[in-house]
Amino acid sequence: MPSEFDLIRRHFSRPASHTLLGIGDDAALITHKADKALAVSTDTLVCNKHFFADVDPCTLGHKSLAVNLSDMAAMGAKPRWCLLALTLPKHLASNESCWLADFSRGFFALADKYQVALIGGDTTAGPLNIGVQIIGEIAVEHALRRSGAQLDDDIWVSGLIGDAALALQHVLQHVHLNDDDLARCMSALQTPSARVELGQRLIGLAHSAIDISDGLMADLGHILEQSGKAAVIYLADIPCSTALHKLLPLPLALQCLLAGGDDYELCFTAPPDKRSKIIALSGDLNLPLTRIGSIGPGTGLAVKDPNGNTVNLETTGYDHFTA
Amino acid sequence: MPSEFDLIRRHFSRPASHTLLGIGDDAALITHKADKALAVSTDTLVCNKHFFADVDPCTLGHKSLAVNLSDMAAMGAKPRWCLLALTLPKHLASNESCWLADFSRGFFALADKYQVALIGGDTTAGPLNIGVQIIGEIAVEHALRRSGAQLDDDIWVSGLIGDAALALQHVLQHVHLNDDDLARCMSALQTPSARVELGQRLIGLAHSAIDISDGLMADLGHILEQSGKAAVIYLADIPCSTALHKLLPLPLALQCLLAGGDDYELCFTAPPDKRSKIIALSGDLNLPLTRIGSIGPGTGLAVKDPNGNTVNLETTGYDHFTA
Repeated sequence: MPSEFDLIRRHFSRPASHTLLGIGDDAALITHKADKALAVSTDTLVCNKHFFADVDPCTLGHKSLAVNLSDMAAMGAKPRWCLLALTLPKHLASNESCWLADFSRGFFALADKYQVALIGGDTTAGPLNIGVQIIGEIAVEHALRRSGAQLDDDIWVSGLIGDAALALQHVLQHVHLNDDDLARCMSALQTPSARVELGQRLIGLAHSAIDISDGLMADLGHILEQSGKAAVIYLADIPCSTALHKLLPLPLALQCLLAGGDDYELCFTAPPDKRSKIIALSGDLNLPLTRIGSIGPGTGLAVKDPNGNTVNLETTGYDHFTA
Repeated sequence: MPSEFDLIRRHFSRPASHTLLGIGDDAALITHKADKALAVSTDTLVCNKHFFADVDPCTLGHKSLAVNLSDMAAMGAKPRWCLLALTLPKHLASNESCWLADFSRGFFALADKYQVALIGGDTTAGPLNIGVQIIGEIAVEHALRRSGAQLDDDIWVSGLIGDAALALQHVLQHVHLNDDDLARCMSALQTPSARVELGQRLIGLAHSAIDISDGLMADLGHILEQSGKAAVIYLADIPCSTALHKLLPLPLALQCLLAGGDDYELCFTAPPDKRSKIIALSGDLNLPLTRIGSIGPGTGLAVKDPNGNTVNLETTGYDHFTA
């Protein structure tokens, strides 16, 4: 099966008229008020693909909105409105089921936190599928695009990378975590934080940004491709939990860190003269912001191990992810 | 299973802050430029619920967008942008399949007709599910809301009602149509026209509007409920094809006409002094616009047969729809 990117490129990428920014970034931009653009995006969660059928519906409600808030964060936009397209099997929608009450509780708790109004949607019967559309506001010239990375920019990530993927590996019984580690990793998988404040505070500091949903290498790769730049990142600098750290350099742990995805942290690039402001911001938000590498000329992404050797994920021999 | 309306009311209806119009109309309205609002809406098509798995993907691409354009039409809005959230089984996304090429051809042909730009989306693997979100522009004070019907308004519908439902009844082998009738009814089912021009031209003429997706009685019922009014409509005045007309007053035919849905025609109310302008508009657009009844005080919808008796769908004995 071709990748999502191949499919979109082949069948759906066309120049969009009367639009500031079309397909290909974390959100599209359309003109709004005189000094503002609307950032518009949609993300779908599919049962047995993005979550298991028996997942706690309250955390699923949270995550359905969080993954969309994360796209707003990656643009530096302030999320304002959302729509919910919910396809539900009949047994979840029955009067006897608490599923919808629990789902909406998780969804609205997060919506309330960011004052995002649910303004519409569609409810249909069928295999469980949750589509959220989100609309935010941003000044056009401030939008953090994937294409903005510049030569010698530092590359930063927020939070810790790889825990969500590690939780999934535990569930799939490819690894065994102790109870404390599992609880922390499951929280990263099921109730990710969207870095909404961070995205807005990076305006004027960052040149480019993306949220890490497909995996650090893949998502940073989108920045590089759209900016026409290369990058080096340092394995030892990528922030991860002790749960994941103690499994390194196992191939499974490397995969979680570099290619796991579902992190919903931000990866962004900024010029070196902003380092002190970014470190101060990290303190303000009580959120780790870590420098993991830098942007260079050319193309491609190199991950260096502590010996200066390039890490090659293809030769680690671990392929549960692609399986 | 509770109805979609029950579910939304119970779990998702809350006052929406910083929003001109929230859940409950054909689209939500949010502030936009000084003199314009954005109308925002989403409609999902689910395989084996809204279409059969073997449907021609080109017509499915058309219909996916058409049902959303129809919501813009019902608000009087000019559709401008859309997003596509496509969940696809792997075999349809394979390199060997023409499914996506055909789907996108049907989708874009209709998008081009109305100059609607596809600005984003999401492609995921799973049971076939097609969510489209649409955004249009309208002057706030001009939006055709469901709540605007006034005493003594005429009730009008565009086009012909019931053919899409009749086509479905043929496919389900509850009725047999001849080839000509079948072709016409299948076209209504598979490639409905969204009444986009009509919606915009009704501004200044109509007091309220809705698109007929759930069935004439149900959708007119939404206008009555939200306007706090009653209505009488006349069975003999509801415009339908000869294919359907020759089956009347069979219960199955009555059901198609009054409760079939999937018509994507507009039902609207307008004061009697606009009749001549509406008839002229019908000529301009080369589209039948037919007066089928009028708005009165109180609550409830009465359908009168040619003898002045009230038609009671519950006692027709026909229940394939609810089955």
